[in-house]
Amino acid sequence: MKDDVRMRGFARRHTVEAALELLDRHIQPLDAERLPLRSASRRVLAADVESDVDVPGFDRATMDGYAVVAASTEGAASYTPLPLVVIGDSLPARPFDGTVASGQAVRIMTGAPLPAGSDAVLPAEWIDGASDSANVAALAAVSPGKNVGHRGEDVARGTTVLGRGRTLRPQDLGVLSSIGVGDVCVIRRPRVRLVITGNELLAAGSSPTGYSIADANGPMLKALAERDGAVVDDPWLVPDEPEAIVEALHCGSDVVIVSGGSSVGLEDLAPTLLAKHGELWVHGVAMRPSSPTGFGKLGSSLVFLLPGNPVSCLCGYDFFAGRAVRTLAGGSKEWPYRSIVAALEHKITSQIGRLDYARVRVVGGRVEPLAIGGASVLSSTTRADGFVIVPADSEGFAPGTDVTVWLYA
Amino acid sequence: MKDDVRMRGFARRHTVEAALELLDRHIQPLDAERLPLRSASRRVLAADVESDVDVPGFDRATMDGYAVVAASTEGAASYTPLPLVVIGDSLPARPFDGTVASGQAVRIMTGAPLPAGSDAVLPAEWIDGASDSANVAALAAVSPGKNVGHRGEDVARGTTVLGRGRTLRPQDLGVLSSIGVGDVCVIRRPRVRLVITGNELLAAGSSPTGYSIADANGPMLKALAERDGAVVDDPWLVPDEPEAIVEALHCGSDVVIVSGGSSVGLEDLAPTLLAKHGELWVHGVAMRPSSPTGFGKLGSSLVFLLPGNPVSCLCGYDFFAGRAVRTLAGGSKEWPYRSIVAALEHKITSQIGRLDYARVRVVGGRVEPLAIGGASVLSSTTRADGFVIVPADSEGFAPGTDVTVWLYA
Repeated sequence: MKDDVRMRGFARRHTVEAALELLDRHIQPLDAERLPLRSASRRVLAADVESDVDVPGFDRATMDGYAVVAASTEGAASYTPLPLVVIGDSLPARPFDGTVASGQAVRIMTGAPLPAGSDAVLPAEWIDGASDSANVAALAAVSPGKNVGHRGEDVARGTTVLGRGRTLRPQDLGVLSSIGVGDVCVIRRPRVRLVITGNELLAAGSSPTGYSIADANGPMLKALAERDGAVVDDPWLVPDEPEAIVEALHCGSDVVIVSGGSSVGLEDLAPTLLAKHGELWVHGVAMRPSSPTGFGKLGSSLVFLLPGNPVSCLCGYDFFAGRAVRTLAGGSKEWPYRSIVAALEHKITSQIGRLDYARVRVVGGRVEPLAIGGASVLSSTTRADGFVIVPADSEGFAPGTDVTVWLYA
Repeated sequence: MKDDVRMRGFARRHTVEAALELLDRHIQPLDAERLPLRSASRRVLAADVESDVDVPGFDRATMDGYAVVAASTEGAASYTPLPLVVIGDSLPARPFDGTVASGQAVRIMTGAPLPAGSDAVLPAEWIDGASDSANVAALAAVSPGKNVGHRGEDVARGTTVLGRGRTLRPQDLGVLSSIGVGDVCVIRRPRVRLVITGNELLAAGSSPTGYSIADANGPMLKALAERDGAVVDDPWLVPDEPEAIVEALHCGSDVVIVSGGSSVGLEDLAPTLLAKHGELWVHGVAMRPSSPTGFGKLGSSLVFLLPGNPVSCLCGYDFFAGRAVRTLAGGSKEWPYRSIVAALEHKITSQIGRLDYARVRVVGGRVEPLAIGGASVLSSTTRADGFVIVPADSEGFAPGTDVTVWLYA
């Protein structure tokens, strides 16, 4: 158990870039499932959707008014009204059956089918005569096609309406419904198991007592993974015992996220166990916090080993586990955070060779680094508006430098 | 039924600003409910949360190493090692029971309680000697408090950890859990009923046949309202009959959204019915599309009358109904869309006195207005990346103008 190397730090750390490159080689969108349209909002299409109908399926009025033969209104004006004989009505789904000839008109509502013979709609305000009169007069001329929505103008049969990889917006569901699509083929949501290790931990929601502390990482990781599209069971609390950890890792979930015991200390069991029972691809990353992060594979599950310190855990999730969850779900690898660019109020210092994740506030349009303790102070991430990344090749930023702030949401 | 005024347009239109001002007077966050933490992500706190514990509840190590009396390491350096007698171990939740004196040390893990007597942690890499040895040597001095996380440094007892109105982030759930909060008091989600009117409509997912069309607005409105924090039942499809519409309106939901029949045409029944059975505050807004939009109240329900044309329906939702849903849910009135500023590729023209909602694409960083039909072409909002608002006092924007684009999501 007590091993000099394990007590003295990592033999070698991956750069963040190298770790991400390695991760990206192992992640791709999951297989597909069919879902009813009503459940498909924000999901990712697994295949192109082509329309096999025209929308609308018929020419229709785009205004309330009178369907006419456009040519028969030529010369009409307020001082030279042209008489029209009203021969019927066209309402949505209750079309006019006959044919409109020159000098005739059919009262028509928005969305109603354009009657045979007519080729334009004269808006109601260009008509003289009561709306229930059989004899009215045109006060203006219309050109052919005016105020008519043509068959297929919204969606033409055979068109690819939405492409594979599209994250479905509310209006996309509307368009899919309009072409008669009742269910869609979308990327399956990854199943994520959370394994929270630590003899000192009490279940979330417990009052901390004595030297025991309540699990903060479980509720946080569950919300993060759900935000990124995963289906997440309630966290498993596991003691720092090899058998218990190994049992928790074997689950067949798409992703397992382990919190705690990821470093090189006496009770940091997870890396050794993952290496023994599966594959440990990365262990130790040149970043702060979250340097004792690792990942690999066990059976069909991607396994992420995140530090138990909650700020490290958040940072390690955002850099590695979250990227995997989002990619498996068919979404973007990139952070789901908005970014802004603003000037630093105070300097941020960092070390060459290590990427830094600096929590900041944005006050009056200026970026204020938070004077914060270490990776154990989770409240620093609730007081912060977001974070600034200092790349590994930088010693930090001077006051006044424009920096990119990623805003927590 | 056939009434000249109703066929000829609105007697008067509200400006968008006036309509919003009127709406804002009638909307405020709903009452509160208690929820388990695990279900509270993205919900809005209904009350401040104060901590009645310190986190951590004890001084602890922030690194793996040796707990010592800092003063006893004075003068230690690699060429002048100072001997230390290791008298025990401190592990998380398994503290060392004794007291550390000068010249003594306790092996300690990150997060473990700092033993009595000690006031600093000497990192393992500054120690000469095997990690299981009882006699080691300090290779460097530490100052008091070094590598120690003090009681209450994350959260001090009595502190307001998160304030009323806060939308809970994943890390907020972590902090709440760490102070022993198992459930939280959050603003209730508004219940929304969707009433989709139109004799020509088939239920979402049906193939359009003859002169009937499949409901596009129901699935779209459901996804929009859910996005904004509502609980939404499946849409009610209702024929254009007064009794059926009135029955659907009486439901006690916090919000009722009616699609279709909102204008002044022959079968536009909703405004008259709302005025008769409840209150119609606004009917007709100086905007395009979505001018035939209205809202008011019936019993305890806010009622929104949106045009049946799907682009109008989307626009009317975003301007009015969505604002109400988000406010009732405790969130921001403002659009949930990101915005960017970019230069127009082609001009956008508008009329003074009317606000315009112009769908655009963003191609190579330039804003291209979509050459699109009217409010009936929903696919214009799936081809668009977002929209540009032309205010009522503007005739539009010339090519090259920097405009704000609200990006659909």
